[in-house]
Amino acid sequence: MSLSSMPDNIIVRLNRVPDPGVLPADIFDLVTEPVPELRSGQILVEILYQAIDAGSRGMLDSAAGYVLTVPPGDRLPASASIGRVFSSLSDQYGEGVLVRLFGGTRQRYQRIDPSRCVGLQVLEPDVGEPLHYLGILGITGFTAWLGITDICRPVPGETVLISVAAGAVGSAAGQFAKALGARVVGIAGGATKCQYVRDQFGFDDCVDYKAADFTERLAQACPQGVNSYFENVGGAVQRAAFALLRDFGRVAMCGQVAQYNGGGEVPGANLMTVVNRQLEVRGFLAHVHYHRLPEFMAQVGQWYREGKLVQPCNVVQGLENLHEAINSLVEGRNIGQQVHQLTASR
Amino acid sequence: MSLSSMPDNIIVRLNRVPDPGVLPADIFDLVTEPVPELRSGQILVEILYQAIDAGSRGMLDSAAGYVLTVPPGDRLPASASIGRVFSSLSDQYGEGVLVRLFGGTRQRYQRIDPSRCVGLQVLEPDVGEPLHYLGILGITGFTAWLGITDICRPVPGETVLISVAAGAVGSAAGQFAKALGARVVGIAGGATKCQYVRDQFGFDDCVDYKAADFTERLAQACPQGVNSYFENVGGAVQRAAFALLRDFGRVAMCGQVAQYNGGGEVPGANLMTVVNRQLEVRGFLAHVHYHRLPEFMAQVGQWYREGKLVQPCNVVQGLENLHEAINSLVEGRNIGQQVHQLTASR
Repeated sequence: MSLSSMPDNIIVRLNRVPDPGVLPADIFDLVTEPVPELRSGQILVEILYQAIDAGSRGMLDSAAGYVLTVPPGDRLPASASIGRVFSSLSDQYGEGVLVRLFGGTRQRYQRIDPSRCVGLQVLEPDVGEPLHYLGILGITGFTAWLGITDICRPVPGETVLISVAAGAVGSAAGQFAKALGARVVGIAGGATKCQYVRDQFGFDDCVDYKAADFTERLAQACPQGVNSYFENVGGAVQRAAFALLRDFGRVAMCGQVAQYNGGGEVPGANLMTVVNRQLEVRGFLAHVHYHRLPEFMAQVGQWYREGKLVQPCNVVQGLENLHEAINSLVEGRNIGQQVHQLTASR
Repeated sequence: MSLSSMPDNIIVRLNRVPDPGVLPADIFDLVTEPVPELRSGQILVEILYQAIDAGSRGMLDSAAGYVLTVPPGDRLPASASIGRVFSSLSDQYGEGVLVRLFGGTRQRYQRIDPSRCVGLQVLEPDVGEPLHYLGILGITGFTAWLGITDICRPVPGETVLISVAAGAVGSAAGQFAKALGARVVGIAGGATKCQYVRDQFGFDDCVDYKAADFTERLAQACPQGVNSYFENVGGAVQRAAFALLRDFGRVAMCGQVAQYNGGGEVPGANLMTVVNRQLEVRGFLAHVHYHRLPEFMAQVGQWYREGKLVQPCNVVQGLENLHEAINSLVEGRNIGQQVHQLTASR
């Protein structure tokens, strides 16, 4: 394809550090630039969908305490992307092929070096729902699987407690724990989400953290206490969950979304419980475990093919609506995997 | 020995739940009761010395969050005791023999069933300093050894940070980490203690948490960051220590003495660090690991015989001065193992 027929690229850049809370429409700039030139072996991917997750908000403000902060003017990393190969200097990935990759930045066209790209996978026409490869079969599912497999380590009959249970990672974590035979209790915001978590994701119970009697209801939902807790929220929910942990309980520390909107740190659990109950509290980041992706795909892919896993997606369309896609997640308006579709139609 | 020649027993009982802070002289009652009658195989031990540790204060008030709370009227458990066999119905422990045992209650004479007693050991006349068997060769050392061996897991060249470094557990933990080849930095209260920790316990550095520039000084003392942290204090020191932990850092959660004086919970570290640095934070209690005492004695006994270990003791005399023995520890007036001698002389 000749340079003259190349479309312009549109790149999202952070305009400024946002105030705490909801992102305004002008928080991002859309900047038009030439598409990058390919070198041998590389491919140019037209990005169609990108994952939105709690980190998408957390990375905008160092006050969020997120692992990564994007300075104003910079491009924004995504945790995973799906796109179509637009032009190719690779023998392996021809034009028109649909691919999923981990990472990617928020822009219309992205140059990829397949040999240096993690999670790059061709999505065959028969893979079913491609968006599942952003979600439960992608980095989201891998993150949930790591926390459940390595840290929560449920055995049949144990109680696993999952925060942000209606979210992409939480709903995946709970479904994996169910597949492993555990009793699974979720925590979510509002009666509608709680019902969804029970009825669609198949959790044994789900408790509304917005209810006035949340702490009591949570204790009732876990009459045997909690053997392991998948933590993604922090704050008051964290304190209530820690209080229910049994001796030798495990806590998979995946995130603390309660502080990702830039409002600063919220008080967490007093750690005396960690001593008294001999708890194991472990934080983890998915990227250092990428060598275990085949193990993940073998186990979760099997459950997926058996029809054990449910993965709804909530799609927000339009490059200019990225702020809205993030707000929807931070405000808890979505269920399942939040997805940003870069164009208005496929 | 006939019953008529039996002395009276004197038992310490908690008078009431203390107010936060220093214990008043009337917080304990000394109650005279007959000594218990022995059954076959049992021994009556005249208690000479008992360990005083942070839990001795923490157990007096449920607001301390300590693992154990003693209700008013009850007898007070000790973590370890040394005494002389006063009378015996045991073939194995004859009258006059000096023994160390884990546990025991704070009273003049205690009936022991050797078959059900943990850590019972005859202290031969040649064991050197018997009080070391309350401290670095006893439950104190075992606790420190568990945290260092199982959780901190230092390798040569790593930096291990130790809170309450002038205390019995902290000073033992630091000496064990040194013996394993780590660089060891302590945290203690005041210049005198810090100097003692450096000069006598052989830590590479020690930082005064009471200094106005504590946080900066701590960072300077750990230029490569902290690979593992032995936690015994909580509060502001905990937050400063967590901030220095490197990726994959380990935290041995042994206690939080900052809240043991009944003032209630103090804010701890925000746990986002646990996610971002992929930390392992684990609580432990010594008693569930008693089956590993032989392993402990093999390794620490070896270091002890090689002269690598230092264990000062601070002895407070008199049954009526138990409150003072505890106050001395809680106020940080002691260095090393705090010991309560039940009579005024051996």
